[in-house]
Amino acid sequence: MEIVSETKCFGGVQGVYRHASKSCCCDMTFGLFLPEVCKGSATPVVWYLSGLTCTHENAMTKSMAQYYANLHRVAVVFPDTSPRGSSVPDDESYDLGMGAGFYVDATEEPWNKNYRMREYIETELPEFVFSNFPLSPDMQGICGHSMGGHGALTIAMANPKRFCSVSAFAPIANPTKSDWGRKQFRAYLGENESNWQEFDSTILMKEKGFPGPVLVDQGTEDPFYDLLKPESLLQAMVETRQNCSFHMRDGFDHSYFFVMSFIADHIEFHRRAAVNS
Amino acid sequence: MEIVSETKCFGGVQGVYRHASKSCCCDMTFGLFLPEVCKGSATPVVWYLSGLTCTHENAMTKSMAQYYANLHRVAVVFPDTSPRGSSVPDDESYDLGMGAGFYVDATEEPWNKNYRMREYIETELPEFVFSNFPLSPDMQGICGHSMGGHGALTIAMANPKRFCSVSAFAPIANPTKSDWGRKQFRAYLGENESNWQEFDSTILMKEKGFPGPVLVDQGTEDPFYDLLKPESLLQAMVETRQNCSFHMRDGFDHSYFFVMSFIADHIEFHRRAAVNS
Repeated sequence: MEIVSETKCFGGVQGVYRHASKSCCCDMTFGLFLPEVCKGSATPVVWYLSGLTCTHENAMTKSMAQYYANLHRVAVVFPDTSPRGSSVPDDESYDLGMGAGFYVDATEEPWNKNYRMREYIETELPEFVFSNFPLSPDMQGICGHSMGGHGALTIAMANPKRFCSVSAFAPIANPTKSDWGRKQFRAYLGENESNWQEFDSTILMKEKGFPGPVLVDQGTEDPFYDLLKPESLLQAMVETRQNCSFHMRDGFDHSYFFVMSFIADHIEFHRRAAVNS
Repeated sequence: MEIVSETKCFGGVQGVYRHASKSCCCDMTFGLFLPEVCKGSATPVVWYLSGLTCTHENAMTKSMAQYYANLHRVAVVFPDTSPRGSSVPDDESYDLGMGAGFYVDATEEPWNKNYRMREYIETELPEFVFSNFPLSPDMQGICGHSMGGHGALTIAMANPKRFCSVSAFAPIANPTKSDWGRKQFRAYLGENESNWQEFDSTILMKEKGFPGPVLVDQGTEDPFYDLLKPESLLQAMVETRQNCSFHMRDGFDHSYFFVMSFIADHIEFHRRAAVNS
């Protein structure tokens, strides 16, 4: 493990670390905020998955998560959103290739060698984090923004024993029915749409749901509203009586100004679910 | 005005008052909690509309609203749910007639003389309350439970300038499509369903919405879930991007144990909307 940086932040430390990833066949960088901790008390972890075009750095610098994470004694992991490097395939558009891993394991050429973000977030990175840092695997929550909200919801529903809670800011909620989803799933997963289903949170919600609480925030002035399809996820949650809270936030858009305005609620939501689980 | 009782409660007073109602052609009784107040500061008012079978008394004694109302310096009015008295028509079923006014103005015999709860809540009772108590008409919110949630939502949308905010516990959300609604609307309003539309919060939400925030709580174990149709209201709110918060509360039913568990959120929600408006 390479320590890229470790910086004091509130009472804790904001670290940036690099490690060789087998899943992604490249070096991967992630951020980790460790709060000040009461001796002997277990530290819950929130996984924060970022959106299109982001690296590990955006939420780490723009979400204000550290203030609340320190206050509530919660660690936050900020993974990257795709493999990186000169040997990694890319696309000229912003929404495919680097910065746009979509939290799936690609099966199609040329993506299938590196674009295995699902495996990376599900298996490799948690093994790495829990073997290197004093955190509690029994107290995990997962959160994400936009493409990361899609990642958080689908990964949580696929791993209900791992996560106590899941939350999302303006998630891509029904990607099999959206131009944010269909393009990428076709490229990464191929033409057979039956292979896309497990990466769609609306479909997963209808089929299996999540045993813990779900929190979703959505801004009314989100310019990508029609691509996100919050109504599909909401309908699935209400139909299945999913334990959930949904907030339609008047006047907010898709930016980190939206995320920072409600990150306190999300951190506190995950802390509470973790300690009560 | 007859003072039925005035009782010290936290730092304020829980009163019960009776007055001759022109709207309902009978004496009507209501509860009013007045908090202790900072001198010179205006006192917001929350109207709490109760559900089927309730009088002014149920929420007053079972919701725990006074603790939070006193804490947040908010007054709460607890109206009755129908006209009362030996000269008032009734039905042997629990969901029509006394205790089941449905917050409409009846047009059909024998109901149309007394069953004018809409006019009573919209016009007569507020005039009476604001001329007799030191409250601020500029800082009103409205809340309700079940049939009262239906009342709160429909009255708020019909009177957007009067109310800063509206909230509901397990509201009857789409009564024109439910056995809680169709039976009563047919009796009170007649066979012509076009006259029912203005008393259906899902329809109103689609057509006009509400300029302020909306808060809805619903329990997953509500035995009346299928009669309430929260999914219809939710769909309308998400489609229209209504400023709203919706909570699906895991394990809660339809009772006052559900209401008391979240009344603090509702009182604080209305206080905040009132002072920020």
